[in-house]
Amino acid sequence: MASNSITPAKADLTSKDYYFDSYAHFGIHEEMLKDEVRTVSYQNAILQNKHLFEGKVVLDVGCGTGILSMFAAKAGAKLVIGVDMSNIIDKAKQIVADNGLSDKVTLLKGKMEEVVLPVDHVDIIISEWMGYFLLYESMLDTVLVARDKYLTPGGLIFPDTATMHIAAIEDGDYRKEKIDFWDDVYGFNMRAIKEVALKEPLVDTVDPEAINTTDCIFKTIDITTVTKEELAFTAPFHIQCTRRDYVHALLVWFDISFDACHKPVRFTTGPRGKYTHWKQTVFYLPEPLVTEAGEPITGEITSRPNDTNPRDIDITIKYRHEGEKETKEGALDYRMC
Amino acid sequence: MASNSITPAKADLTSKDYYFDSYAHFGIHEEMLKDEVRTVSYQNAILQNKHLFEGKVVLDVGCGTGILSMFAAKAGAKLVIGVDMSNIIDKAKQIVADNGLSDKVTLLKGKMEEVVLPVDHVDIIISEWMGYFLLYESMLDTVLVARDKYLTPGGLIFPDTATMHIAAIEDGDYRKEKIDFWDDVYGFNMRAIKEVALKEPLVDTVDPEAINTTDCIFKTIDITTVTKEELAFTAPFHIQCTRRDYVHALLVWFDISFDACHKPVRFTTGPRGKYTHWKQTVFYLPEPLVTEAGEPITGEITSRPNDTNPRDIDITIKYRHEGEKETKEGALDYRMC
Repeated sequence: MASNSITPAKADLTSKDYYFDSYAHFGIHEEMLKDEVRTVSYQNAILQNKHLFEGKVVLDVGCGTGILSMFAAKAGAKLVIGVDMSNIIDKAKQIVADNGLSDKVTLLKGKMEEVVLPVDHVDIIISEWMGYFLLYESMLDTVLVARDKYLTPGGLIFPDTATMHIAAIEDGDYRKEKIDFWDDVYGFNMRAIKEVALKEPLVDTVDPEAINTTDCIFKTIDITTVTKEELAFTAPFHIQCTRRDYVHALLVWFDISFDACHKPVRFTTGPRGKYTHWKQTVFYLPEPLVTEAGEPITGEITSRPNDTNPRDIDITIKYRHEGEKETKEGALDYRMC
Repeated sequence: MASNSITPAKADLTSKDYYFDSYAHFGIHEEMLKDEVRTVSYQNAILQNKHLFEGKVVLDVGCGTGILSMFAAKAGAKLVIGVDMSNIIDKAKQIVADNGLSDKVTLLKGKMEEVVLPVDHVDIIISEWMGYFLLYESMLDTVLVARDKYLTPGGLIFPDTATMHIAAIEDGDYRKEKIDFWDDVYGFNMRAIKEVALKEPLVDTVDPEAINTTDCIFKTIDITTVTKEELAFTAPFHIQCTRRDYVHALLVWFDISFDACHKPVRFTTGPRGKYTHWKQTVFYLPEPLVTEAGEPITGEITSRPNDTNPRDIDITIKYRHEGEKETKEGALDYRMC
């Protein structure tokens, strides 16, 4: 059998409903738990740092099945409070009980902004809040609410640093399959849909061989200090072509670091790392760039929540390629929805 | 790149909202169009039977991107009316115009039960209404409404016959991965979720080599005559083991036939056919059966819409295996949701 289960159709709902329900089904938790890059990183960050957790009060924001809460309890936390607004928390409560951890782990169903915690302050916040493109349908806003309301001065956040990276890729074959497909569908012109497809970044895994530029970090987020406002940003980037090739798309991924650990635990969701369920995010250009080694591609990325549906992200990429064969520039609007 | 795009989380919404929005995103239409077993079967059934479509009025129930409507127009229909309640129909209108077919194809946004057609009767109904397990989130109810309200006596329905098939499979490895996974998740017992996973049929592709019984048709649906009430049914099945093996699951698939064609066009979604996006539906047994060649497995399948959420399907499978090593019987409740 192949490994994919029911792939439900994409819901296009009010953000609140969609968010609320999207984590109720066990399938999404199965996918996240089986993402070993993700889960083992959290396991290592927590269990290899018992000296940080011993006797502490820990808050798990968006606890899901309770896996991180149970890691924290196992690491010696005095009390772990897990909060989640999804119905999955009913299962998590049973799981915590089945593992004999009910005396250490308290799970609360509700929104972080509304639930009443049994404590005024917590020593450590743990959370797996990251979405596609780091910020799409992410829970980072909620982590910041929890941080500002509950984290004791000098308290720790697991993880505490995220970086966003960009490079360019040759991707002619897959572009044909995903974008140019709409030019001729069983003899019919469906370019009306091609336009939409071009504006939606594609979340997929990319062969590292496809990368034909250097890569750079365009955004670093310090989760201990960042504000909600700073999550809407414009950031410059500068990459350099590494071979004679065509550039069909720009590629974004993120890395995560637990710098509070005795020895930092880190993982990447980039194409050179092991597979993660976040894959990478591909932004197709309307036309490929014709590039030679050494040529620069510069530009800036703007990312901000959509005005009417704040769970969607509007992304604008301005780029300029100064090449031997051509100089091209443009500003492209994308939407993750 | 792998071929899978964003896999949105499973929504657990009121049926109406979920249905309404799930077809708005182009990704689901891309998947359906790229299912060549599906789309080429419709193309053949329609375009190889121009003598049936020439000068006729055709209704396309749930027209989506308009592909079937355009096939019908190309086959010589005088007028094709496509109806869909999803926002995708806005794109379909543009597609029909872009292909110069606006004079022959009229698209109407709304529920079949509510839209006002420009004609009183239609000669042919075309529809791709099939869901997982044939009936899950299917639009067959809507096709029946359209048939009873608009189809002229002696009119045709494409397709007009569906059969549902059952067999048993050996599936030990994958069962471990999908079900027994929950026994020990990074050292924690998550059997609270295993219980849920066992009750939800798994939609996935099965290796035909895994089949270790005969298969049988347990339900035949004549779409020209079936009533909505007959779609809630109990049907017996009788299969026979073909080798010494273990049976881990029962497997259901469906075949579709366009019997109205001059020469019937048919396709299967079974494991011995080419891949389709419907895959097959796997019902795990709590414990495997120990089987020898020739032994019978008998039982009955009940399928009916859930009382509170009629888009969900409650499925009960009663089975009895009379074997040399053991005799086992049981009644298992599943829910597709």
